Amino acid sequence: MYKTIEWTDEGIVMIDQRVLPLEEKYVCLTHYQEVAAAIREMVIRGAPAIGVAAAMGVALGMKRLPPETPPAEVTGAFGRICGELAATRPTAVNLFWAIRRMQQKFDELTGEPLPAQQAGLIAEACRIHEEDIAANRRLGEYGRALFTADTTFLTHCNAGGLATGGYGTALGVIRAVHESGRKVAVFADETRPFLQGARLTAWELQQLNIPTTVITDNMAGHIMAQGKIDAVVVGADRIAANGDTANKIGTMMVAVLAATCQVPFYVAAPLSTVDFELAEGRGIPIEQRDPREVTHIRGLQLTPDGVSAANPAFDVTPHPYITAIITDRGVAFPPFNETLARLAGR
Amino acid sequence: MYKTIEWTDEGIVMIDQRVLPLEEKYVCLTHYQEVAAAIREMVIRGAPAIGVAAAMGVALGMKRLPPETPPAEVTGAFGRICGELAATRPTAVNLFWAIRRMQQKFDELTGEPLPAQQAGLIAEACRIHEEDIAANRRLGEYGRALFTADTTFLTHCNAGGLATGGYGTALGVIRAVHESGRKVAVFADETRPFLQGARLTAWELQQLNIPTTVITDNMAGHIMAQGKIDAVVVGADRIAANGDTANKIGTMMVAVLAATCQVPFYVAAPLSTVDFELAEGRGIPIEQRDPREVTHIRGLQLTPDGVSAANPAFDVTPHPYITAIITDRGVAFPPFNETLARLAGR
Repeated sequence: MYKTIEWTDEGIVMIDQRVLPLEEKYVCLTHYQEVAAAIREMVIRGAPAIGVAAAMGVALGMKRLPPETPPAEVTGAFGRICGELAATRPTAVNLFWAIRRMQQKFDELTGEPLPAQQAGLIAEACRIHEEDIAANRRLGEYGRALFTADTTFLTHCNAGGLATGGYGTALGVIRAVHESGRKVAVFADETRPFLQGARLTAWELQQLNIPTTVITDNMAGHIMAQGKIDAVVVGADRIAANGDTANKIGTMMVAVLAATCQVPFYVAAPLSTVDFELAEGRGIPIEQRDPREVTHIRGLQLTPDGVSAANPAFDVTPHPYITAIITDRGVAFPPFNETLARLAGR
Repeated sequence: MYKTIEWTDEGIVMIDQRVLPLEEKYVCLTHYQEVAAAIREMVIRGAPAIGVAAAMGVALGMKRLPPETPPAEVTGAFGRICGELAATRPTAVNLFWAIRRMQQKFDELTGEPLPAQQAGLIAEACRIHEEDIAANRRLGEYGRALFTADTTFLTHCNAGGLATGGYGTALGVIRAVHESGRKVAVFADETRPFLQGARLTAWELQQLNIPTTVITDNMAGHIMAQGKIDAVVVGADRIAANGDTANKIGTMMVAVLAATCQVPFYVAAPLSTVDFELAEGRGIPIEQRDPREVTHIRGLQLTPDGVSAANPAFDVTPHPYITAIITDRGVAFPPFNETLARLAGR
């Protein structure tokens, strides 16, 4: 079984998600700058996985400080490392959440000798990793209870083991239903431009022996209109306090079509994905990526020379299109501004 | 300037739309079976262009009959040729419409000597071609009157010169507005799996000097939600009597999102695209194409080995999502079952 990300004595080992499914290649990163580049270039992607990678990146950067570094320089280095990792991608909130956790741990360790700080930060990053896997499993259990019959799911992008510490959010729900003995089938949107669905979701589901049909993103409406889909389940990169959900570009189209076709639409994400500072989705920054991801696929040119392309990486699904949000602390139904806050104990 | 299709003494010359925009290559087809294969394999595509190609294919097949062929065999050959060309693609009605026109001409020529029949059929095919270009230009004029201000359009697939005898339906409207001196810009959905938008629409609009931004299909909703689009205009492969419209897969998602975002949604097609025999869109056969078009792009494998894919080539947009249908005889507004019939003089 593959591992999305792992802390080792040699460095942070990640499966290279750019070359899956044709190659199963691992990279070992030994400098935090390499971790920042890996997040930016999508060697690793998926909101929870990015959070784990950033936490490990902070630990890695601090681990490399020489033992004799004076305390003031240690603090400066910590700020620099966190800043560089925070600047990699703007939309997924888990990145900032994980860095904040590392900051809290660093604050706790003030005054300790550097080796103790380093060990403490490594332990905290590994704890974030383990907690994410455990949160996914709980989330899967809560989601499973919603699907008590055989179910054909539609999913968009990849919210599986590859997008998280290891088990998956949207795919975590799907595999939990599958493990409960229900007959499960999945339609996977290919998810241009990066093809997370065609490449990653299809690969994960194949390993889990869950029957999967890949479709292009523009087929989702037709398939739902034909009555082939019982439920849509997707992940999330950031959820506002009112339930508005930023997720991979195209999610909003699927949500609107699901509503039109009367198919329930579920978001599955750990509660750490909820940004309670944001009242509504309008404030979520949408990353604009390199247009070359649209005009080319693995070096193959699709468009005429010199044509413009846009590449917004996320969109926001307004909360009225969301049936429920499945979290690691329970399932939130509308009104989300009340139910999400309650789950978070706020 | 490129030519989509042309009748020449050597054979039927077509631009190969599979290799655009990276190569501008022409093929010369000398047997009707090659024309059938070219339609099936999408060397030529687009409902009106397929109609022209099929008519020319019939003329080409008949032209090759030896002068001494007995009348009964001529009739048999005509039926065989029409049957083979009609079996190439099921959704676009223009194919069947064009073959019916050739059948009527053949019936008129009953009793004539074979050379006169052959010349008559060639002339009829060329007339269908010329009429299509003229119909597109009239359609463009009618459409232009709807857009009296600077306009940013969204279009899906390719309904341009390449999809027709030469001028374009949806792109015919856009270029007519552009020629009228209004400032025009276009967002072009890439239109997986065949990438007609990224490859063909972008290429045509570039030659017309109309500013174009290619987006992946799943970005259309986000771009409309941001208020960037004034109007959507698309072509059609078959329109039922009530206005339900079959067009390239994904069109329905764009239409539903346009309605959600209060963006007007126009269909542009010659009246020959309306199938008055069909009361509603449910009866339109949807072509299922080779899943390999989804799992691969020009030989490049996207998905894991052995994964399933679906490839419905069209979907049906229910008429309530359509603001108006722009035809070569005027613009039809709802209720379409009345207005389309009136335009057709039925």
